[in-house]
Amino acid sequence: MGQDGSPAHKRPSGSGGGLPTTTVANGGGRGGGGGRGGLLPRGRQMQKTFNNIKITILCGFVTILVLRGTIGVGNLGSASADAVNQNIIEETNRILAEIRSDSDPTDLDEPQEGDMNPNATYVLGPKITDWDSQRKVWLNQNPEFPSTVNGRARILLLTGSPPKPCDNPIGDHYLLKSVKNKIDYCRLHGIEIVYNMAHLDKELAGYWAKLPMIRRLMLSHPEVEWIWWMDSDALFTDILFQIPLARYEKHNLVIHGYPDLLFDQKSWIALNTGSFLLRNCQWSLDLLDAWAPMGPKGPIRDEAGKVLTAYLKGRPAFEADDQSALIYLLLSQKDTWMEKVFVENQYYLHGFWEGLVDRYEEMVEKYHPGLGDERWPFVTHFVGCKPCGSYADYAVERCLKSMERAFNFADNQVLKLYGFGHRGLLSPKIKRIRNETVTPLEFVDKFDIRRTQVETKPQN
Amino acid sequence: MGQDGSPAHKRPSGSGGGLPTTTVANGGGRGGGGGRGGLLPRGRQMQKTFNNIKITILCGFVTILVLRGTIGVGNLGSASADAVNQNIIEETNRILAEIRSDSDPTDLDEPQEGDMNPNATYVLGPKITDWDSQRKVWLNQNPEFPSTVNGRARILLLTGSPPKPCDNPIGDHYLLKSVKNKIDYCRLHGIEIVYNMAHLDKELAGYWAKLPMIRRLMLSHPEVEWIWWMDSDALFTDILFQIPLARYEKHNLVIHGYPDLLFDQKSWIALNTGSFLLRNCQWSLDLLDAWAPMGPKGPIRDEAGKVLTAYLKGRPAFEADDQSALIYLLLSQKDTWMEKVFVENQYYLHGFWEGLVDRYEEMVEKYHPGLGDERWPFVTHFVGCKPCGSYADYAVERCLKSMERAFNFADNQVLKLYGFGHRGLLSPKIKRIRNETVTPLEFVDKFDIRRTQVETKPQN
Repeated sequence: MGQDGSPAHKRPSGSGGGLPTTTVANGGGRGGGGGRGGLLPRGRQMQKTFNNIKITILCGFVTILVLRGTIGVGNLGSASADAVNQNIIEETNRILAEIRSDSDPTDLDEPQEGDMNPNATYVLGPKITDWDSQRKVWLNQNPEFPSTVNGRARILLLTGSPPKPCDNPIGDHYLLKSVKNKIDYCRLHGIEIVYNMAHLDKELAGYWAKLPMIRRLMLSHPEVEWIWWMDSDALFTDILFQIPLARYEKHNLVIHGYPDLLFDQKSWIALNTGSFLLRNCQWSLDLLDAWAPMGPKGPIRDEAGKVLTAYLKGRPAFEADDQSALIYLLLSQKDTWMEKVFVENQYYLHGFWEGLVDRYEEMVEKYHPGLGDERWPFVTHFVGCKPCGSYADYAVERCLKSMERAFNFADNQVLKLYGFGHRGLLSPKIKRIRNETVTPLEFVDKFDIRRTQVETKPQN
Repeated sequence: MGQDGSPAHKRPSGSGGGLPTTTVANGGGRGGGGGRGGLLPRGRQMQKTFNNIKITILCGFVTILVLRGTIGVGNLGSASADAVNQNIIEETNRILAEIRSDSDPTDLDEPQEGDMNPNATYVLGPKITDWDSQRKVWLNQNPEFPSTVNGRARILLLTGSPPKPCDNPIGDHYLLKSVKNKIDYCRLHGIEIVYNMAHLDKELAGYWAKLPMIRRLMLSHPEVEWIWWMDSDALFTDILFQIPLARYEKHNLVIHGYPDLLFDQKSWIALNTGSFLLRNCQWSLDLLDAWAPMGPKGPIRDEAGKVLTAYLKGRPAFEADDQSALIYLLLSQKDTWMEKVFVENQYYLHGFWEGLVDRYEEMVEKYHPGLGDERWPFVTHFVGCKPCGSYADYAVERCLKSMERAFNFADNQVLKLYGFGHRGLLSPKIKRIRNETVTPLEFVDKFDIRRTQVETKPQN
């Protein structure tokens, strides 16, 4: 909810496309576990970018040699250190170019990558119709792999990023911090993580890549009750809060959104696919099958994009993204699906970052972890920041600093058990928040989150 | 073991210092969870490096404008895309510089950072003498947090990296891949991960940072039986292999090394602290207390380095590192410690990468996962590669490609359950290795590692 009570204006998840700009070629965004969609073929765009970077660095090197006589040696540091630095940078770029171009000589049997035939119907895999009973039989036969652990249904968190280095170097650093953040939350809550860095299906690249991976995990992990997809640009910011699974006993899809935006306004941001739970069951396999057809890249995805833009309020013109496609599916086949869909907004299963990141200090002052809502958001989601790509919808500085703040805000909650906290929300340095003791276990009893776990009730 | 039967020449772990060079200023290496040691103050070296990079990019920009008239517009791409790219790169660098300089205005209460008084004795914390009984009592009172799970002692894997972006951009990308690799192994073996990105003790930065963190985790997680430290430049390459804990029932420290190198030659690489297990008990707290005093940075660490160089065979001259200090401690106080130390070399708890990475294809052809030794190494450790830093001991290209191969070699073992594999060990692309089916559970029964887990016996 926005600060004035109305739903905050939300863009789709960071793995979706942002508002198109003249340079939307790379604006397709960093897909969680997928490649980037775009108007130019990705290879050509990358090649151009690399040519630019290589020429820039070579020219810079030449220019340094020329300028040294003018500016003086002192300001530029020692020649050998410069040369070594340059050498390493050039060599790294050359290797990066090689890795990115993926010139593996054993790639001889790779079929020619073309767009899918627009007249063929895309399928995620062979149609399974009895998954509920297959799964039930397997669980009975494998009691050492129950679908509930310590009274809670087993959850597997799926996230990921593309297999190649980010265009923007800082992107990999924030992907690293993001996965550490997820490791911390999941360790405290007994949730397994799968970090996907592979494209299971070249047709469904970019933000669509989550669909085949979710399906694959369901079928490979019958012991898992819920698959929780989470974007790599979404951070946990309430380390204590637990998903209130009891609310969803009769539902199969839990997704953050607003019913009025969905049903009344048909808004393209009525739901957010940056963080949602899908139950491991036949219904979900059917949903994925119905959801996927707009995804195959090329003419199918482009044409589908036009349909979605025409149908959904506020949607700019760009190729079909998974979020818009899901909204369209749930609206156009409302009777088929909506009974089992829980549109959740009592807590921030997805929390749009802009209205949250400046209030962390105020939250610490007034509230406490475990609330999960606007008082202490469960998830802060950096929609549109795209630190991995070249083109963001928001100012780079604002994004990076905000992500740093969110990360440290969460990290403070984790470090509390160990007696430390960050010096400030922008500081990587930590300080002691309590003295060392020869009886450390009293603090374990007091601060270990797993021991103080309560089922939090949503507000209202 | 090396290929010719003699122990392979091993440098200390990647988080330790490598052979010193004239530019050893940044050669202190990337500490796991610590900062970088070095001869120049880190801030000044960073500042110089940033000045160099900023000037390079500015000059390159000017040069491009000049050269465009000569080379032609077509080869350089559109002006607006270049300008936007440049803008983003410059802004990112400026923000990086700000984040790195850590100019948080709330840092007012930070004491002046100076070196520790060489005459004072460094302590990790107040002396605890009854940890075994404290822990035992707590475990009795908290049966819901047993120290064994499914018949195996509870292990917590500790790894980490410095809180700031890597000097070399590719470094963060490989840190990300490395943690994904660890997530996969630990998920399959029920091991919890703590990824440390904080300096708990500014005295013990760099490779020493693991000591206070290990101690902190022991005292905060009484339910954990073993803390397993693993460097961020070490990758799991045998996804099936399990640590044979039964071997270590009478031991408290399990570390890879060679007794003859240790006792006969007093070699500085007789043991490797890049991957070792420490039992959560009083003995370990005492070991950490005895180990730490050579660590405090400044004169203490420098002087200790000289002692270590004089005492240990083959050690170059540089500040004290944790590995050399441990070897020195175990040798000079042999009777106190060695009874509880297991020097393991029956499998590659640490496997020096150089003799391993070229043989992966041969391994796939001849052997199978689960062996953990030179036939299928448990851990491949990229000692000396330092992708996060500026100065490596090995050629950048060799290191990056080898790490890529090791990562994909391991990833293939994980993807097998899902029916995929990499197209080649250098390729981020994957291909199906078996067809989809409507009865996927037969493959779960066949390929899920957790279901086929056997206690592997070491060779001999």
